[in-house]
Amino acid sequence: MIIQVRKNIPQHHIDSLLELVSGIAVDMQDNKYIITPSGIKTLPGQFDDITQHHWVFDSDIQLSDPAFMTKRAVNLGHGFIGGDLRNTVLIFGPCAVESAEQINSSAVLVKSLGHKILRAGSFKPRTSPYSFQGMGLEGLRLLRETGDKYGLKIITEVRDATHVEEVIAYGDIIQIGAKAMYDHGILRRCAKTDKPVLIKRGFGTTLQEFVQAAEFILSGGNENVILCERGIRTFESKTRFTLDLCGVAWLKNNTNLPVVVDPSHAIGYAYGVPDLARACMAMGVDGLLIEVHPNPKEARSDAAQQLDHQSFLQLHESLKTVANAVNRNII
Amino acid sequence: MIIQVRKNIPQHHIDSLLELVSGIAVDMQDNKYIITPSGIKTLPGQFDDITQHHWVFDSDIQLSDPAFMTKRAVNLGHGFIGGDLRNTVLIFGPCAVESAEQINSSAVLVKSLGHKILRAGSFKPRTSPYSFQGMGLEGLRLLRETGDKYGLKIITEVRDATHVEEVIAYGDIIQIGAKAMYDHGILRRCAKTDKPVLIKRGFGTTLQEFVQAAEFILSGGNENVILCERGIRTFESKTRFTLDLCGVAWLKNNTNLPVVVDPSHAIGYAYGVPDLARACMAMGVDGLLIEVHPNPKEARSDAAQQLDHQSFLQLHESLKTVANAVNRNII
Amino acid sequence: MIIQVRKNIPQHHIDSLLELVSGIAVDMQDNKYIITPSGIKTLPGQFDDITQHHWVFDSDIQLSDPAFMTKRAVNLGHGFIGGDLRNTVLIFGPCAVESAEQINSSAVLVKSLGHKILRAGSFKPRTSPYSFQGMGLEGLRLLRETGDKYGLKIITEVRDATHVEEVIAYGDIIQIGAKAMYDHGILRRCAKTDKPVLIKRGFGTTLQEFVQAAEFILSGGNENVILCERGIRTFESKTRFTLDLCGVAWLKNNTNLPVVVDPSHAIGYAYGVPDLARACMAMGVDGLLIEVHPNPKEARSDAAQQLDHQSFLQLHESLKTVANAVNRNII
Amino acid sequence: MIIQVRKNIPQHHIDSLLELVSGIAVDMQDNKYIITPSGIKTLPGQFDDITQHHWVFDSDIQLSDPAFMTKRAVNLGHGFIGGDLRNTVLIFGPCAVESAEQINSSAVLVKSLGHKILRAGSFKPRTSPYSFQGMGLEGLRLLRETGDKYGLKIITEVRDATHVEEVIAYGDIIQIGAKAMYDHGILRRCAKTDKPVLIKRGFGTTLQEFVQAAEFILSGGNENVILCERGIRTFESKTRFTLDLCGVAWLKNNTNLPVVVDPSHAIGYAYGVPDLARACMAMGVDGLLIEVHPNPKEARSDAAQQLDHQSFLQLHESLKTVANAVNRNII
Repeated sequence: MIIQVRKNIPQHHIDSLLELVSGIAVDMQDNKYIITPSGIKTLPGQFDDITQHHWVFDSDIQLSDPAFMTKRAVNLGHGFIGGDLRNTVLIFGPCAVESAEQINSSAVLVKSLGHKILRAGSFKPRTSPYSFQGMGLEGLRLLRETGDKYGLKIITEVRDATHVEEVIAYGDIIQIGAKAMYDHGILRRCAKTDKPVLIKRGFGTTLQEFVQAAEFILSGGNENVILCERGIRTFESKTRFTLDLCGVAWLKNNTNLPVVVDPSHAIGYAYGVPDLARACMAMGVDGLLIEVHPNPKEARSDAAQQLDHQSFLQLHESLKTVANAVNRNII
Repeated sequence: MIIQVRKNIPQHHIDSLLELVSGIAVDMQDNKYIITPSGIKTLPGQFDDITQHHWVFDSDIQLSDPAFMTKRAVNLGHGFIGGDLRNTVLIFGPCAVESAEQINSSAVLVKSLGHKILRAGSFKPRTSPYSFQGMGLEGLRLLRETGDKYGLKIITEVRDATHVEEVIAYGDIIQIGAKAMYDHGILRRCAKTDKPVLIKRGFGTTLQEFVQAAEFILSGGNENVILCERGIRTFESKTRFTLDLCGVAWLKNNTNLPVVVDPSHAIGYAYGVPDLARACMAMGVDGLLIEVHPNPKEARSDAAQQLDHQSFLQLHESLKTVANAVNRNII
Repeated sequence: MIIQVRKNIPQHHIDSLLELVSGIAVDMQDNKYIITPSGIKTLPGQFDDITQHHWVFDSDIQLSDPAFMTKRAVNLGHGFIGGDLRNTVLIFGPCAVESAEQINSSAVLVKSLGHKILRAGSFKPRTSPYSFQGMGLEGLRLLRETGDKYGLKIITEVRDATHVEEVIAYGDIIQIGAKAMYDHGILRRCAKTDKPVLIKRGFGTTLQEFVQAAEFILSGGNENVILCERGIRTFESKTRFTLDLCGVAWLKNNTNLPVVVDPSHAIGYAYGVPDLARACMAMGVDGLLIEVHPNPKEARSDAAQQLDHQSFLQLHESLKTVANAVNRNII
Repeated sequence: MIIQVRKNIPQHHIDSLLELVSGIAVDMQDNKYIITPSGIKTLPGQFDDITQHHWVFDSDIQLSDPAFMTKRAVNLGHGFIGGDLRNTVLIFGPCAVESAEQINSSAVLVKSLGHKILRAGSFKPRTSPYSFQGMGLEGLRLLRETGDKYGLKIITEVRDATHVEEVIAYGDIIQIGAKAMYDHGILRRCAKTDKPVLIKRGFGTTLQEFVQAAEFILSGGNENVILCERGIRTFESKTRFTLDLCGVAWLKNNTNLPVVVDPSHAIGYAYGVPDLARACMAMGVDGLLIEVHPNPKEARSDAAQQLDHQSFLQLHESLKTVANAVNRNII
């Protein structure tokens, strides 16, 4: 249950009620709210005096529920996604920062197409200790410098809580990876910034758990949360993962958060990325994350799934046509 | 391995070689072929004299492999899908034939939109013995009569081998349902007709097995096979199934068969069907199967996922716009 | 809901009530029952006069529910499994009948260990048309002759409805395979025999659907139904399937049917079968189905997962020890 | 590839070769090793002079591969598990430390049965921000004090990298939870202690990735790694997860690490835990993790799956009998 507290209620009164229900206090836009565990379905009598309004929920999807707040818009700096806008942001770039030359080439591509955000990873969450682990802090700095040089925002991934400070300090949009999205160390820290946070769905994560991860950040005080579907693990092994567009339809219908899709990680092979990207655009998603590398064959990670620049240019043209057909505005 | 036999080789010679490799003989378009198990990777010496050409495959996807034959086109009567055409067929109608009035209303909708195929089930593969099982042969006849009345082709599902004769006799396109697609009684019988056969992927079926089911029909002599993705079973339970569009991308890239998608069964809820249908159109699928009912609330099966006529009309308009954007022709 | 009808109610009265609720009539052990769809949660007023007793259920697991009838015992001929007995039947033999010599060798093994049931398949539900499809009716006859020669019961699989008559005619226990368990043609026919029917769970089948398949047979009049878990399809590909022993625990707790496990198909590799078989025995399952072949390397199907006779003899010894520890009696 | 370096090779020579192959250096038991990415399948010529022995592997399962080292034994303080011993450790206790009284009661149970390890969580990786999050550092201290009071070792979970120092400082065995097992911050830090580390398999984690997580710790210098299967996420929703005992059989056959099983989290309901625990014992696992609470109904997390003390005592008796049957020694 979310309880909106009347104005001018003394804090100590709120505090004692909070304790009573093991609730969490959240301040949003000049209002105070108390969020209780979802098990509480009726307004406790003691709250009558302080309650301006209250909302009851079936589950711990509360702040994300459209019944509490209609579609949320998130400001990316150069424009908003979500809300009642019809903007779709295109975010692309290589899997990982590998060298100054490589990331520079990626930035030039972004710039030349009139886009504003550069993506690349620096702390790679590899499953093997014996493969390329990313350039770490050095790569993060390189990405920041490159972004500044071209006037681009950067989005990069935090892998674990040991470097969350650095990623928040250097990045413009913070990406929480699929393997890290249950990490309380990351989630709680991201709740204390106001930079936009893009959470990728874990490949073994239910939609319920996915949105609940967003609730950690929202209830901690950061309202700028973006959800990103990137494929779930199923019995099918011909493709790397299975892109869950039924899940995207559910998220659009049942939450108030912007929804972005990453088709590259989902299928894991470049051949299918253009078709899937167009499909997502036709669904009206709020953004696309696409892996593009100046020379995919030489990529030190995810080589099979990255588009080369030429292929991306073709895709880009067709995305504009589809966006137009479904009345979306690419930003 | 597929071996194309030279002209004028005596049949008894072919037969003795067939036995040698446990092969299957297939006649297609004036040519004779021998198909061996995929384990055979080099042309056995005895075949040198009779071999016009041969193709080696990694797996038992052989006749469906684009290396053997580029994209196949299937004739639906009023037009082709597949091949190098850019046609997308729209097939819609109720889950089940329930009454003359209901199926008549559905036929009027199809006719009024200028489409040519009416879909409805009559032998329903329900998982419970205590729910509506379909109208059976009576429903099949009603569907046939309604199709004839409005000049529409009909597509309907065969549930098990006990009524496969009747479905082939009455239907124009034979649908093999997700739960029946391993059924040799059905597959082998459908190989002996030349009517188009649409195979739905089982919800626990790998892409490999799915295409191998098509190989039963192709190798039995019927070249008019259509694949239909309709959602697989995963850990996610907020939606009925998980539509596997990565799988569709794989099928388009790795087989020569037309690929159709059924978004209604995948998500299981009407709210998501329009978005998913537009996504499939933007991917360039060869067809869409959509459940539409004159009065979904009264439907005796799949009530939650059927669109009403008004919603379908809106979807239909937007599908035309998306088709246009990706240069597809709706038939 | 299951309604037990009072004695001496005229049939026409029952029939009119059946129609009213779209119910099914079942005669069991001198009683008449009416089974309604599970949606009906309260006894309709018109039934007051004829109702001896009634049971309400959450779902269409009705005749299998322990609230309706405590554990059912099924007679295999030489002994019972299920009920409040603590018997575990060992059923073993090759995947498929391949030759007279091979099946004879298997029968000798069964006989020599004092067991009473020989298993082998003759209509193989292969997913590829280009691999060994089983010996068909010839194999079925050979299996029957071999069983008779050694005084053994036989269990064999029905693949589709086209040969269900023959399998029922020749077999002692009818096995419905994992790919055929939704097949109404098979289920409805097996309801009309009184031979025991062992239903294997489909690899994409929920426990709910699995038990509902049993309800088809039970409600059709055959009370001798055995459930068999044989592995479900998951994202893990190092093993062929994933044996669902949590599911077995659920079935034991939530149904009244005997539960048998097939570890061979689950893991798909002989090395793990002994450990898994001992695990199942320690859980107290009602039976084990194990693939054993005189010469696994030469097997024409499932070669990797079949135990040779020597390995099986060792396993057999250890199963006796484990059975003793958990107070089970091997039959 | 693992390369064992000859004695007396100068470090600078090793270092330059390491760089050449992007390798990792590991010191184990007076020997130096170089581990290369698995892509390297033949010994590079430059290594000839320094190589004592080398092993080639198919994948990045290297230090865990039985071809490199036969079964590893891990010292728990009061005894070893793994190796060629036949010991099975029983680890039990509540899901979470909730109060001094509660954890004291649990310790008394452990002590009274002659066992040596107390388990409980203090940093709970809950998926909702609105439910009980564990007692944190306070709970950790309480657990340590209780362990000391009764002379018990403690095992407790690290949730994220922000408190990994504290868990290593206070704990005797470090548990990495299913949601944290990809966390490099945790894995790399645990590699620098020599305390035993028990890694739980993520519910969406393949066996390959699971063992590769162990490789992070092994290659970082800590050889005391234990694997724990606790159920994977599948389409089945009647149970919380699906216990993967096929996977356990694979791990026993394909790795050299001790394998422990947690049946409580797998099924998620107390009714099935005893059967599953006996099954695991019969399989010959190296340990069992079982949730036991003095009063499960009052538990603040995982209430449904915790056994009460009385039920556990019964299970404990039967585990001794099964252990005896399969020649295992409970420690």
